[in-house]
Amino acid sequence: MLDRPPGPYRVFSDSDVIDHLAGLQRVRDLLGGSPQDWRVRDVADGNLNAVFLVGGPAGGGVCVKQALPYVRVAGESWPLDVNRATYEAAYLSRLAPHVRGLAPELHHYDPRQFVIVMEKLEPHIILRKGLIAGERFLKAPEHVAEYVAQAAFHTSDLAVPFERKAADVALFGQNLALQRITVDLVFTDPYVEVWRNKVVAPLQAWAHALRSDIALKSAVADLRLRYLTQAQSLLHGDLHSGSVMATPDDTRVIDGEFAWVGPTGFDVGNFIAHYVMAWFAKPSHAGKRDAIAAYRDAIAGDIARFWLTFRRRFLDIWRQSDAAGDGLPSAHFSDAAGQARVEAIRRAYVEAIFRDALGYLAIKTIRRIIGYAQIADFLVIEDVNRRAVLQAGALALARALLKRPQDFPDIAALIAALPRYEGAGLDPKRAPQ
Amino acid sequence: MLDRPPGPYRVFSDSDVIDHLAGLQRVRDLLGGSPQDWRVRDVADGNLNAVFLVGGPAGGGVCVKQALPYVRVAGESWPLDVNRATYEAAYLSRLAPHVRGLAPELHHYDPRQFVIVMEKLEPHIILRKGLIAGERFLKAPEHVAEYVAQAAFHTSDLAVPFERKAADVALFGQNLALQRITVDLVFTDPYVEVWRNKVVAPLQAWAHALRSDIALKSAVADLRLRYLTQAQSLLHGDLHSGSVMATPDDTRVIDGEFAWVGPTGFDVGNFIAHYVMAWFAKPSHAGKRDAIAAYRDAIAGDIARFWLTFRRRFLDIWRQSDAAGDGLPSAHFSDAAGQARVEAIRRAYVEAIFRDALGYLAIKTIRRIIGYAQIADFLVIEDVNRRAVLQAGALALARALLKRPQDFPDIAALIAALPRYEGAGLDPKRAPQ
Repeated sequence: MLDRPPGPYRVFSDSDVIDHLAGLQRVRDLLGGSPQDWRVRDVADGNLNAVFLVGGPAGGGVCVKQALPYVRVAGESWPLDVNRATYEAAYLSRLAPHVRGLAPELHHYDPRQFVIVMEKLEPHIILRKGLIAGERFLKAPEHVAEYVAQAAFHTSDLAVPFERKAADVALFGQNLALQRITVDLVFTDPYVEVWRNKVVAPLQAWAHALRSDIALKSAVADLRLRYLTQAQSLLHGDLHSGSVMATPDDTRVIDGEFAWVGPTGFDVGNFIAHYVMAWFAKPSHAGKRDAIAAYRDAIAGDIARFWLTFRRRFLDIWRQSDAAGDGLPSAHFSDAAGQARVEAIRRAYVEAIFRDALGYLAIKTIRRIIGYAQIADFLVIEDVNRRAVLQAGALALARALLKRPQDFPDIAALIAALPRYEGAGLDPKRAPQ
Repeated sequence: MLDRPPGPYRVFSDSDVIDHLAGLQRVRDLLGGSPQDWRVRDVADGNLNAVFLVGGPAGGGVCVKQALPYVRVAGESWPLDVNRATYEAAYLSRLAPHVRGLAPELHHYDPRQFVIVMEKLEPHIILRKGLIAGERFLKAPEHVAEYVAQAAFHTSDLAVPFERKAADVALFGQNLALQRITVDLVFTDPYVEVWRNKVVAPLQAWAHALRSDIALKSAVADLRLRYLTQAQSLLHGDLHSGSVMATPDDTRVIDGEFAWVGPTGFDVGNFIAHYVMAWFAKPSHAGKRDAIAAYRDAIAGDIARFWLTFRRRFLDIWRQSDAAGDGLPSAHFSDAAGQARVEAIRRAYVEAIFRDALGYLAIKTIRRIIGYAQIADFLVIEDVNRRAVLQAGALALARALLKRPQDFPDIAALIAALPRYEGAGLDPKRAPQ
């Protein structure tokens, strides 16, 4: 890990961006004209990095993302290793053959300036903003499900010789700075009192209840240890609705700088968690009552379609693969009875992902409500009391997922539970268990 | 992985050994006199490497181990990456602070000649030879248990920040050549017909039964995938009675070239497997009937003491540790109720190791009886039919462990099962399930 960026690194200005792109023939062709014709727009929006969109007279554009040596939203007082860009670029490259059209195309990576140049996505918007605005992105759940299914299969021992997987584990196992953020902000902080947590006053009772619930923290500890030890597939590591850009027809997963080889259910659960939180937040978003009710139903449908598409695609990709992974030797199961057993093994594998996903769903929900990095779905609700009441429903659901996972045998059970926990209220003792 | 050793490498002759040691001041001091006074003895005994013992006039000695560019027992037709010595040396160094007196001291590693110079163990003998000869090594099970407990705790997420663990995973994750041997010879070959398997005629029915038992192969597949994905602690990777040198009072674990970060139960189960096989083989070893019966009881006692010592020491090391591992944040469990929960978590953790160990015990037993690398405990029995009858008992137990793990809730159940499977016989259909 770097304490400071290496010598040649500098934080890019607009003109640095132009100079950088001017040296890349492929980008020159894309943008057209000459560099002085190009327009640079600073569009940084996430928590960590600088992001620019650059357009040229040919009509084409690129996105330029530079890792800053600190957490952008926190400032220089919170330094952060710029090498994260190296892992994001490696992640894009590693998955590119399997997720064409579901991620931005990588044009160039500069490991000295920690700058990624990639496809400009237009007229895509961040999926989270669409969910808040009540716009429908009907295909996004299926597209993201396809993305996760492809990544989960093709980077696992089911698809590749263990030597290849070991190389991924070794490479992304160096992506330590952002893993430290995950370990601290996701798995640790929400369950203790630390300065980084942001708990609004009406949620103090809930925060205290979660922090003092030993059975719940024991479930968190189990999922935490599994995150650290279960090298199942290459994860995006931060796969939420803010890491997806969409139009009604096109969907792209972005921001893979948290890449890590871990339990597949971590990505699956994270994505569902943000749809679940959108469902809970929705009643206080702008819109007419009927439209909001209908939109919530649509979100519930999105959750079901996401999981069922993931499940179906993951199983189909596996069934149709002739990849020579070391995880399950086909020679051991070559006859008809063996093939039937392999099908049972596949189903058990995907069920185990579902169980993991429910746990990580709960953990991701809790960290976004009583932890440091909160989400716009709730923050746009200015009335803190009203917001807290909605958040309490999500916390109650998360508590149940961690403490009573047997109550959620399938995705239908999860969706049916949403209205049951909605009215949980600010007193965790009186909320449904 | 190297296709051939790098330029400077050459297979050492006796005089190369002397020249090499002459350049190491620490070794010169140990051996005393001048190099022409030193005596070199070729003592290669394992399957893979060249090994020399060197003594000098000062009375001290060293052991010199060089990785050959092929499998020693198979010859040059089976090439093998010499880099394995690098991982063996790294393994010795990594564990040294935790297993002092339980492993040979590493004096020097030469990464150009792939030569390890380490403590000469005298008058130690290979534990397996002692077991075959009916000699008692009362302390060996407890010493090895202590070794495994120390390694299992101190290299796990329970003890170290995940950044440190990721470095171990990345380093030993490059130890690919020997992992390929494990994946192929342990987890694959015994369940298919391949040239490397050695199945004596009377065991053909058993070999066929195991190869066509889909439920059994499904259990093997599960343990195989766990071996590849569960990065729990740094494993020795080949921890059997041939990897232990002992006197009645002193015990050393050697030959860590299979080092890999994987499920702790793999080492635990492997070590038990070789005691189990010694128990099954014993009736046809030299000795009087009464002495053999008593020795078998002693082996059963060794198995119990090994597991119970491992369990007790692992729990105690964990309880007494103030290490800041990322696996279980102590801040989440700081009050009395939390401490009680942590104790329950500890017990569940060690029970999970036991369950894993039983599975790997079974797999290791099968591969040593119908796979390529067989063991002297059985091979010294010249009457192949007699040998096969004894081996059949071990195979029957292994089958039960894989297919009915619920029948083996604790170590007592395992020991009680030994005589039950002893008379299984050569017909797997009539053997106890």
